[in-house]
Amino acid sequence: MRPADRVLARECAVALSFDGATQAVMMASPVALEDFALGFALSEEIVASPDQITAIERVEHNTGIEMRMWLAAPVGARLAARRRAMVGPVGCGLCGLDSLAAAERPLPPLPACGLRVTRAEIVRAMSDMRAVQTLHSQTGGTHAAGFWTPGKGLGTLREDIGRHIALDKLIGARARAGADLSGGIVVMSSRLSIELVQKAVLARAPILAAVSAPTARAVATADAAGLTLVAWARGERCEVYTHPHRIAGTTGGRDAV
Amino acid sequence: MRPADRVLARECAVALSFDGATQAVMMASPVALEDFALGFALSEEIVASPDQITAIERVEHNTGIEMRMWLAAPVGARLAARRRAMVGPVGCGLCGLDSLAAAERPLPPLPACGLRVTRAEIVRAMSDMRAVQTLHSQTGGTHAAGFWTPGKGLGTLREDIGRHIALDKLIGARARAGADLSGGIVVMSSRLSIELVQKAVLARAPILAAVSAPTARAVATADAAGLTLVAWARGERCEVYTHPHRIAGTTGGRDAV
Repeated sequence: MRPADRVLARECAVALSFDGATQAVMMASPVALEDFALGFALSEEIVASPDQITAIERVEHNTGIEMRMWLAAPVGARLAARRRAMVGPVGCGLCGLDSLAAAERPLPPLPACGLRVTRAEIVRAMSDMRAVQTLHSQTGGTHAAGFWTPGKGLGTLREDIGRHIALDKLIGARARAGADLSGGIVVMSSRLSIELVQKAVLARAPILAAVSAPTARAVATADAAGLTLVAWARGERCEVYTHPHRIAGTTGGRDAV
Repeated sequence: MRPADRVLARECAVALSFDGATQAVMMASPVALEDFALGFALSEEIVASPDQITAIERVEHNTGIEMRMWLAAPVGARLAARRRAMVGPVGCGLCGLDSLAAAERPLPPLPACGLRVTRAEIVRAMSDMRAVQTLHSQTGGTHAAGFWTPGKGLGTLREDIGRHIALDKLIGARARAGADLSGGIVVMSSRLSIELVQKAVLARAPILAAVSAPTARAVATADAAGLTLVAWARGERCEVYTHPHRIAGTTGGRDAV
């Protein structure tokens, strides 16, 4: 892209509130914020399903956008109790969870899943994603998370200046359509950190594939949870780090061919 | 790098606490954490100078590392008051600040500074940084922030899985040496978001240069604060987005040659 053709990625302060109390404030690309709100609520395990949120309102403030969520009564009471148990304000990447232990929260094991894909399909999923990264093609400055299903191709794609938010948006978009991330490949334009693995597992993704490097904890967490982690998916290649049985032709262990 | 030569970037949950109360928990690369602690305290404006922290202790827990800071009495009282005024837990990128307005906190104007560099020096600073990104050359999965001074070259470099943390580490490392970021170029391996601009301005950096794209708010904030923002610094080229008077041979406006 030539500089003259490029535009700047917009971002906006987005507050996520539940029953009138702010849970988190983040800079986000101001698109698909209903998806982000629901995806965040699911990823943070504030709700277990979309129907536990009775309403999502978008409130424009001078300083940013508030996504105001109202919770079904028992869920709201549980969050209020969780807040009361907190010792102090915490933040960054582990929203509203106040201990070191929460950084490695227990994850439910992935349900058994017959999905098996080829390396060629992962390469294809990546290039399909790149072809429709509209924000990225305009700005060069945003990440994307997509859901790609064998035989159907790329079903849903969401973009954001933040990779964590892009994945929350994808999770929320699928949830609003009554679906999770099972049955397909989640593709990401970014590196893979533990938080992305946690979000993917909670949304029942069997395979998470990304363009760049995974961290050690991302690999360990994916291994423990039963997630197939694929990284360095560039050009015609990719590396399978965990649970290679879902990748046809991969025999086991870390396989980089 | 061939896959077999690559190692995984380690990360670790790091809690930052002040006077016994946790302010934030983040995943970070477990190196230079004293720099991170001090840089975070400065970037979040919890302290105005290193001497307002009377002690930094590193406490190893099973689940992560706590960087425990103790504040000089008046500063500790001010933070306690700020905490009491908060309505609820908040997080992610805007640690411990509980409103949408806080996302665009007022920044002190940069002091006048005679620094003027050439594009060739920016290109050189970038390549000097790349040559010593040890963690990145091992893992392919970490960011870096460096401080480069004309005539002296790269003085300090810090790496982390998170770009915000890499910059906090650089700020902390300079502060521990009794210095800020004035008089040189801050170079980063990442995109440029508003938070990085805020941190740089608070640390009195006159020039912030990065490999990838800036966001719209990053540019607007740099413009308002008097910071020279340079992005897309790749190969022999770079783009100057704001305050081009510090870049020799740049005449004004956004200049991409």
